[in-house]
Amino acid sequence: MTHFVESPYLVPFDGAFRLTGRPTQPPADRPSKKECKARLAEAREQLDELQRILSAHDHHSVLLVFQAMDAAGKDGTIRAVMEGVNPAGCQVFSFKKPSDLELDHDFLWRSAVRLPERGRIGVFNRSYYEEVLVVRVHPGILDGQRLPSSVDRERIGEQRFESIRDHEKHLARNGTVVIKFFLNVSKEEQRQRFLSRLDEPEKNWKFSKADLRERGHWDAYQEAYEAALGETSRPHAPWYAIPADSKSYMRMCVAEIIVERLRGLDLHYPAVDEEVAAHIDDLRAQLGAED
Amino acid sequence: MTHFVESPYLVPFDGAFRLTGRPTQPPADRPSKKECKARLAEAREQLDELQRILSAHDHHSVLLVFQAMDAAGKDGTIRAVMEGVNPAGCQVFSFKKPSDLELDHDFLWRSAVRLPERGRIGVFNRSYYEEVLVVRVHPGILDGQRLPSSVDRERIGEQRFESIRDHEKHLARNGTVVIKFFLNVSKEEQRQRFLSRLDEPEKNWKFSKADLRERGHWDAYQEAYEAALGETSRPHAPWYAIPADSKSYMRMCVAEIIVERLRGLDLHYPAVDEEVAAHIDDLRAQLGAED
Repeated sequence: MTHFVESPYLVPFDGAFRLTGRPTQPPADRPSKKECKARLAEAREQLDELQRILSAHDHHSVLLVFQAMDAAGKDGTIRAVMEGVNPAGCQVFSFKKPSDLELDHDFLWRSAVRLPERGRIGVFNRSYYEEVLVVRVHPGILDGQRLPSSVDRERIGEQRFESIRDHEKHLARNGTVVIKFFLNVSKEEQRQRFLSRLDEPEKNWKFSKADLRERGHWDAYQEAYEAALGETSRPHAPWYAIPADSKSYMRMCVAEIIVERLRGLDLHYPAVDEEVAAHIDDLRAQLGAED
Repeated sequence: MTHFVESPYLVPFDGAFRLTGRPTQPPADRPSKKECKARLAEAREQLDELQRILSAHDHHSVLLVFQAMDAAGKDGTIRAVMEGVNPAGCQVFSFKKPSDLELDHDFLWRSAVRLPERGRIGVFNRSYYEEVLVVRVHPGILDGQRLPSSVDRERIGEQRFESIRDHEKHLARNGTVVIKFFLNVSKEEQRQRFLSRLDEPEKNWKFSKADLRERGHWDAYQEAYEAALGETSRPHAPWYAIPADSKSYMRMCVAEIIVERLRGLDLHYPAVDEEVAAHIDDLRAQLGAED
């Protein structure tokens, strides 16, 4: 039985999801910025402890997928949520434009080889969802993917949703906890953040004209996210559309959902090796009598 | 020109290294535990900033290799040093007994595919050095490696040292900063730590009889480490034999060596995209005039 975490930001499983009207800002009765930070810090400590047990238990892995428009705060959120976790128990992969090697495989391959091992938390900064987002907005990208002629370009979006659903179902069935976050930033907030990147020399290098070009496709992206989230949110691999205009609130929400989900797992430290248990006094005596 | 970091714990490059007599304890005039912790915290902050520039600069990568006897504190040190660094800029791999797939390749392959990308810090918790350490102590392991008959078993140790030296020279030449740490714990301190593992139920599961068995080969391991460190410490890939009986001192030493080495690199934020620089005012105006 899957215990997905309830939340006002959970994307429903029935395909009826509409992105329009979904909040990009916290609710009016939001916790203060200070309180958000305190709750984030607390969740981080719990996450660290949970990862420790996850690692010792060594049956489950955790996959966190982050998708968003530029400047919504993916990098910062990943850092804020994960930096308290043992670096050896966590791995972050950022997926950029696929390489030639990656394009020599199906669209799930490059992320499949980077899935987290049992006991670890894997974070995907962007993911295979790019194949139903940027590719939907720029279908010309498919021309460079050397797809066989048998692929029906009219149905490829729908087929990719099916592949993704099947893939995530398979992962969940085999012990991977999949949680997906869409950081829902408003167009106006993105504009402000772009402007601040232009103003701050240390952030300048991060900005390219391409960022602005993609912003020009805002509505098409919103439509693509709506479809992707609605088509692939499932109890075993839920999407959460988190308001992203306030960073402190967003980070707290993400961290708390992860913690609550991991608490729902039956994690425990493994029983002591039987042989050790039987001989523990012997071992102690052996070490104690050495010199 | 390579700027290796000078240190009393640097393993000399002339092969004259002797492990016997190398300190496992901090010097008498050591900083207090409190001071060690404060200096570690400071180094951690600097490392975070250096990684940020490393990532932006995107020309170098950093490989940190950790080797040690059991209970010397590899896991704890890696965590203590790296946990302030952006999780997206750091990756830790623990190498255990090679898998069948890994044994289908040469002994450097499994770690080569896990080398850090430019801009990132990769940490190897154990490494290809196991192949000249545990394999030297237990040469029977080679029987399972399906080595071709042309391999001279008498010369394999020496040949592996050569392969490792060549590999690290190649990495360094191509922009990877290689720093290697041997955490030098005393036999008595290991005994104490094993005993505490037996006493603490939360650590019990970590302990297996095999740990005690390997301890029985202490002298053979010391001899293997001495040979490996001496044969492969080079200015571009130096080994440091860090006293490991005091955790706070050890962690501080490791962190400070890494920071000093990265400072010696010519890291800088990249120049702003020329197009952006030329049009930065246009872009600002474009964003500013949107609504």
